[in-house]
Amino acid sequence: MAAENALHMNAAEHEISYANNSVFQKEVILKVRPIIEESIIAAFSEFVPACMKVAELGCSSGPNTFVAIALVVDIIHAICRQQQLKLPELEVLLNDLPENDFNSMFRSVPNFIDRLKKEKGDMGCYVGGVAGSFYDRLFPTRSLHFVHCSYALMWLSKVPVGVESNKGNIFMARSSPPNVFKAYADQFQKDFTKFLSMRSEEIIPQGRMVLTFMARKNQNPSDEDYGWELLAKSLLDLVAQGVVKEADVDSFNLPMYSPCKEEVAEIVEREGSFENNELQVFVVDTVPLSREKQLRDEDVAKTIANTVRAATEPILCDHFGDSIIEELFIRFAENVANAPNNSMHQRVSIVVLLTNKG
Amino acid sequence: MAAENALHMNAAEHEISYANNSVFQKEVILKVRPIIEESIIAAFSEFVPACMKVAELGCSSGPNTFVAIALVVDIIHAICRQQQLKLPELEVLLNDLPENDFNSMFRSVPNFIDRLKKEKGDMGCYVGGVAGSFYDRLFPTRSLHFVHCSYALMWLSKVPVGVESNKGNIFMARSSPPNVFKAYADQFQKDFTKFLSMRSEEIIPQGRMVLTFMARKNQNPSDEDYGWELLAKSLLDLVAQGVVKEADVDSFNLPMYSPCKEEVAEIVEREGSFENNELQVFVVDTVPLSREKQLRDEDVAKTIANTVRAATEPILCDHFGDSIIEELFIRFAENVANAPNNSMHQRVSIVVLLTNKG
Repeated sequence: MAAENALHMNAAEHEISYANNSVFQKEVILKVRPIIEESIIAAFSEFVPACMKVAELGCSSGPNTFVAIALVVDIIHAICRQQQLKLPELEVLLNDLPENDFNSMFRSVPNFIDRLKKEKGDMGCYVGGVAGSFYDRLFPTRSLHFVHCSYALMWLSKVPVGVESNKGNIFMARSSPPNVFKAYADQFQKDFTKFLSMRSEEIIPQGRMVLTFMARKNQNPSDEDYGWELLAKSLLDLVAQGVVKEADVDSFNLPMYSPCKEEVAEIVEREGSFENNELQVFVVDTVPLSREKQLRDEDVAKTIANTVRAATEPILCDHFGDSIIEELFIRFAENVANAPNNSMHQRVSIVVLLTNKG
Repeated sequence: MAAENALHMNAAEHEISYANNSVFQKEVILKVRPIIEESIIAAFSEFVPACMKVAELGCSSGPNTFVAIALVVDIIHAICRQQQLKLPELEVLLNDLPENDFNSMFRSVPNFIDRLKKEKGDMGCYVGGVAGSFYDRLFPTRSLHFVHCSYALMWLSKVPVGVESNKGNIFMARSSPPNVFKAYADQFQKDFTKFLSMRSEEIIPQGRMVLTFMARKNQNPSDEDYGWELLAKSLLDLVAQGVVKEADVDSFNLPMYSPCKEEVAEIVEREGSFENNELQVFVVDTVPLSREKQLRDEDVAKTIANTVRAATEPILCDHFGDSIIEELFIRFAENVANAPNNSMHQRVSIVVLLTNKG
């Protein structure tokens, strides 16, 4: 399967848009703020460029596109004020696959720039977009100072080869045959290695990169509860209803991966271009407000279902057709509500801070 | 009127899209090839950058977006081969207002890059998009080597102030009161001056800029047949039918301008940042194939109507509403067919090559 054409979040005008269903992803970005801070302080201790060129990879479209950038601007401002450095201009390049909703993204740029000018004065912040896969080259050689990528790198370039035996599952699951774990791990290793190697050509020597993505806690991949069993179960419910063919579920697998931290460290080490300055695993609630607001299980489940739908609908439609989606996510919300301890309620994430050895 | 939100060409999925109705604009780009060539030869005689950063301003979306860029790549290749220079990487930034159809533009990037790789090998060409008005800053200070802008600069930042007396017309016309010509000329002078001043900060010293836009032949603006009288006439036809209010036609004026070459030269001189290396006025058939193919007057008129519609529909809809468009352009095509010598059949253009004094 060529994942690229179906691999994008739901567009702004969509019923369940990613823009309105990505609160969790925002929480993740805010959580890694100290690491972004650390990376920019380290970079500026060496050299402040006249114009700092920053890339946001897998930016999608919606409020989160600008959360990370606003954070980077904030941090740069604070450091320059504190250390009495001349404020650099900022060139921001937002990247996603060509099917991303760039129109909606670009239409929110003027508001972002206006807000920035009001809050910080006219520092010279220039925002552009770049369409393409981050598993290929995207930017000129040695042109970037800082790269940020949040919740995009778990998406593989394609469904791994050799997962035909993963029947009744749509991702690694505790009941998956051993070769499925290997096939997934191999694909991630290839993709992440290529990602590092492409970026090592684009980032200046000593330039930094902060990457956050889905991960797992257990070193043994078959010990983990990935949570996606509930989406598989919902598809099998539709098989039982006669709405979906069993063979279609058997042949569907998500082009995603959840590595453990040892795996990530090893790939970085083996690829060799980057120094690994920091590596942390952390957990974030999928519905961050659920505890404070004491939401009912059904409401939490609905929110989780929308979050998952906004991110997976195009790829599900590509395989199963549009007509099942509404019913599938009603089922999925029910299944999530009935399994309040399922790991869909929390996501394990990993964050790495890397420096280009140059 | 804030022209910006309505000032964009028709999107790709539109019945009469700009993508399918911009053959004339392509002719114009091809016509100025020698001047682009001259500018790059001159630039490379001083210095070949490791990565050449090129901006295409007012790129719109459709095949023409890539015509100019393909031409620039071609020229760079030929010069480097001939003079045995190391081929630079190329960073291309495509700019238009935020309402432009960037999605359709980005979806055609992979094809463009693939074709380039096949024809020229992998030279390292990176394409991005930047949304915003070229009457503001768009790019970091001293970051661009070459700027191209074709058939966009005649669009003003707004309808000139003080053209309320231009009743029954929608643009400068031979029957317009004198103050209307002055109001239009003043607005163009302000806008073009701002454009030059913004670009002078963004382009490196000795960097070049090639600008092509709508112009007029006569120094006296009231001597010119601008051709837009036929669109005004078509609107008045709808007034006669009771479909459009006369007051709405009276209060509508296009945010466009056609300068003569003396005016352009004077503004460049007065703004002071650029050396004026070349300035030519030339004429292109609006339907370039009409002579070879001996098209019937009605077919030529239909093509002209579609070309005009693809470029003006959003701004007309914004003022008159969507419902009149179909009927308006049927009328317009009839009026064009009945006036085969009207200057809608040919467009006067101006091209300038400017070098940043730095």
